[in-house]
Amino acid sequence: MIWCRYQLDGKTSFGIVEDGRVTEVWGNPLEDYAVTNHSHALADVKLLAPIKPPMLYAAGPNYRGHVEGMAARRGAPPSYPDRPSPNYRSVHAIIGTEENIVVPDDCSGAVQPEGQLAVVIGKTARKVPVSEALDHVFGYTIGNDISQRPWQQADRTMFRGKNCDTWKPMGPWIVTDQDPKGFRIIVRHNGEVWEDFSSADQIWDTETWIHELSNYATLYPGDVLWMGTEGADGDMVPGDTIEVEISGIGTLRNYVVAEG
Amino acid sequence: MIWCRYQLDGKTSFGIVEDGRVTEVWGNPLEDYAVTNHSHALADVKLLAPIKPPMLYAAGPNYRGHVEGMAARRGAPPSYPDRPSPNYRSVHAIIGTEENIVVPDDCSGAVQPEGQLAVVIGKTARKVPVSEALDHVFGYTIGNDISQRPWQQADRTMFRGKNCDTWKPMGPWIVTDQDPKGFRIIVRHNGEVWEDFSSADQIWDTETWIHELSNYATLYPGDVLWMGTEGADGDMVPGDTIEVEISGIGTLRNYVVAEG
Repeated sequence: MIWCRYQLDGKTSFGIVEDGRVTEVWGNPLEDYAVTNHSHALADVKLLAPIKPPMLYAAGPNYRGHVEGMAARRGAPPSYPDRPSPNYRSVHAIIGTEENIVVPDDCSGAVQPEGQLAVVIGKTARKVPVSEALDHVFGYTIGNDISQRPWQQADRTMFRGKNCDTWKPMGPWIVTDQDPKGFRIIVRHNGEVWEDFSSADQIWDTETWIHELSNYATLYPGDVLWMGTEGADGDMVPGDTIEVEISGIGTLRNYVVAEG
Repeated sequence: MIWCRYQLDGKTSFGIVEDGRVTEVWGNPLEDYAVTNHSHALADVKLLAPIKPPMLYAAGPNYRGHVEGMAARRGAPPSYPDRPSPNYRSVHAIIGTEENIVVPDDCSGAVQPEGQLAVVIGKTARKVPVSEALDHVFGYTIGNDISQRPWQQADRTMFRGKNCDTWKPMGPWIVTDQDPKGFRIIVRHNGEVWEDFSSADQIWDTETWIHELSNYATLYPGDVLWMGTEGADGDMVPGDTIEVEISGIGTLRNYVVAEG
């Protein structure tokens, strides 16, 4: 099942996507909802980020190649994490597919993409064993963890380095009933493939992250967990198009623009 | 004016506090509201955290004594920040006054308080000059940034070190029309004064934080910014009572309990 959130005639709704059309839903797929008799061509609606999460978690390093690529840039040996290290991202920085990633005026460069699998929590999770973790997942979507490397490295926190307005594209929609180890994730910069990796190569899998998080911090319906990225990509500049495609989900496409 | 959020007979409302009574308000003080003709004795309602913020920002080091005290513990020279360094806290970890701070079973100790002034944003702030920053403040409340030092130092992120369930007490209410430089902040552990400091001693003041944040990330009504703490306090154990009092606001009181 494919769930989207969209705007039409100034109204925001959840919808179910099928055969190029979206059927309007009243209510919220994570609570109570009803499927209406209103249907629209997908091309006629504006897709929004498919969820506004109360908390947006981002996995710390979760692919060996990312740890190694980032370390190589710094001229340092790779430092592999010894346990899942969740961080937070600003929910206000979330935008949807086809929206603009804005580069601030004082941003000196090295704005880079990080294609990520995004896991949407469906049921409250508190001290959940690994074997039951996936029962708490509603579905999967795509995130792009836009990062400005000089700020990320110079600042004490990732505030400017990862959380400027518009720097958290997510979408295009949420797909349910998927195997989180079976995704192929491709990052394309102006059509050129920059990364092509498998969610099976995560250091810790979705089940383990949910287990570990829920041991200390209850996860609530609508919370979203971005699962980390592979590799170390290049710089984006205004005028560029960046896409993250995940097999079985779709493509998250965004455009880099100057603040101007 | 004093704004609270409270529960009575299973219903959650905003209210205005005056002379030991709370007057129920319909709607939301940050948007549209109406003052009802329903009034209750404060003692008859359960106060909740006065706001559920979309984003809970926490100032990185913002008092010299905290930088120095934490550095001394590590046996390292103090490293003063060169710019405001905002971080995030989990909005799910927020509790109200008189609620329990729960120490997880596998927590080895060194759970410590950090009394903090909390600034509640009232108006959307985007690239706000310092001189206009306070126009975007709705009011002030109190936060206690509970921190587990071994996890804070060992982990890559502050997830476990600062964001376990119940570790973000906030309250008891929001007071408007205050001078953010004029607060006296007192932390009491089982009645003993652990810290007694002034908001005038912040490295960067409220105006500067709002200006800096808003240059990169738009602040929205209801967002809350915790302004950092002074000193380096001791350990709390189950059975302890921890209070943060701020002049002109009130007292945030919480009880430390074992998970059990």
